Amino acid sequence: MPFTYDRTIHFSDTDAAGVVYFANVLSICHESYEALLAFGGMNLKEFFSGRSIAVPIVHASVDFLHPMRCGDVIQVQLKPTEIKASKFRLDYTILLSQKTESNPIAATAHTIHVCIKTDGREKTELPEALKQCLIQAIE
Amino acid sequence: MPFTYDRTIHFSDTDAAGVVYFANVLSICHESYEALLAFGGMNLKEFFSGRSIAVPIVHASVDFLHPMRCGDVIQVQLKPTEIKASKFRLDYTILLSQKTESNPIAATAHTIHVCIKTDGREKTELPEALKQCLIQAIE
Amino acid sequence: MPFTYDRTIHFSDTDAAGVVYFANVLSICHESYEALLAFGGMNLKEFFSGRSIAVPIVHASVDFLHPMRCGDVIQVQLKPTEIKASKFRLDYTILLSQKTESNPIAATAHTIHVCIKTDGREKTELPEALKQCLIQAIE
Amino acid sequence: MPFTYDRTIHFSDTDAAGVVYFANVLSICHESYEALLAFGGMNLKEFFSGRSIAVPIVHASVDFLHPMRCGDVIQVQLKPTEIKASKFRLDYTILLSQKTESNPIAATAHTIHVCIKTDGREKTELPEALKQCLIQAIE
Repeated sequence: MPFTYDRTIHFSDTDAAGVVYFANVLSICHESYEALLAFGGMNLKEFFSGRSIAVPIVHASVDFLHPMRCGDVIQVQLKPTEIKASKFRLDYTILLSQKTESNPIAATAHTIHVCIKTDGREKTELPEALKQCLIQAIE
Repeated sequence: MPFTYDRTIHFSDTDAAGVVYFANVLSICHESYEALLAFGGMNLKEFFSGRSIAVPIVHASVDFLHPMRCGDVIQVQLKPTEIKASKFRLDYTILLSQKTESNPIAATAHTIHVCIKTDGREKTELPEALKQCLIQAIE
Repeated sequence: MPFTYDRTIHFSDTDAAGVVYFANVLSICHESYEALLAFGGMNLKEFFSGRSIAVPIVHASVDFLHPMRCGDVIQVQLKPTEIKASKFRLDYTILLSQKTESNPIAATAHTIHVCIKTDGREKTELPEALKQCLIQAIE
Repeated sequence: MPFTYDRTIHFSDTDAAGVVYFANVLSICHESYEALLAFGGMNLKEFFSGRSIAVPIVHASVDFLHPMRCGDVIQVQLKPTEIKASKFRLDYTILLSQKTESNPIAATAHTIHVCIKTDGREKTELPEALKQCLIQAIE
């Protein structure tokens, strides 16, 4: 069962075309990743401060299937898919919770994260606590 | 009793100084206003689409008392304070829910909103449904 | 020769890890697309208002090669690559203008855009003016 | 003569009402402050990293006089107004460069900045280089 994150679309997410600005869809995906980490007991403040090690995103990809508008209630389903020594991939499916239309998937996306030492930016192993967080979300 | 809106600080809210980017504090305040409107039964999609009438913000002001960091849990307390024919003011207090420090207020802010016709941008009366929403949050 | 767009990294682009927030890299790419349209004489206000026809992004993808920090001067090189009847693709290369390191490419990205009627969201042909804008940037 | 900063309104600045999202106006003001610092030879990367000393905004205020839309060309006029030992104020006027209407002022704003030690967040004196930057923009 994927980890789920519920969210309402904010006015600040939208653009002059009346729908969520495309890049903000990836921000919403990232929020679900943060929620997963918090759920797994990680200290977000430390984890995202960029001290000693960091786990930056090296690739992100998103497909837009259905526009989202201010006030829409969505659910992000998040699934870690490839947990390697120093790397992992997260798959996201964003569902429009109000099924007023036949296809309720608003977007799908994935991100690839690589663990590095902030000095020199060399690859290093994922912290064990992070790994456990991700593994729990698969099972 | 003020209307309350609970929120976790996202990574995207922060800046390179490690805290919430100052202007994003106002976005968080606006989210609480959207939550109030949704709670009162307003259709956000229509309300914020800028059709025929709009209720733009004409003034915003914010004081920063305590930095907020990724993962911090906050509560926005929202109180409408001056509901006039075509105008109202919203007062916001942002509390850090984890009282690890003596002063848990992170920021205070207010916004002033004026109802206008989108054609010509002349002042007009607040829609009755909006007025009721705001009044309920005072009582 | 690709279309180029010069930009300084703003503080608001960054996150608590001290570098540009990943999703903001796509926003910077989009700015270069807007600059191309403005250069080609398109009226951005109308084009992005979502009236009658719209050209939403249906796919976006980005690879991050080098972190960007506040104050960094970058150049986006933008190249339309697949101009079809109702669809086109834009390829972006973001260069760090200050060549203090061996690899000055900060990110590469692409977006795919499809022209639709806003009523019903059916595919329709690209407006001729837009097509000309894109073609000029290839030659 | 105030320091000036020229800018085009981006699609990402706008919201579903078709105009610049209110909080983004303050971000645009902050960009002009960054441009002033860069012009004065400050290293933005270091200055905004939050190391040892920081100069956070303690108050921000903005009045919205005229909506700004995607593609609008604006000019921010920035004037430091109260340079004290550990504190200063910046005043911003945003002009719509295309004078198609009688009142070309889109917004006015100000921010108050206080210099602190990041450990303990106690007030401390403004760095001399910053002070010189600000003073030059007054004369």
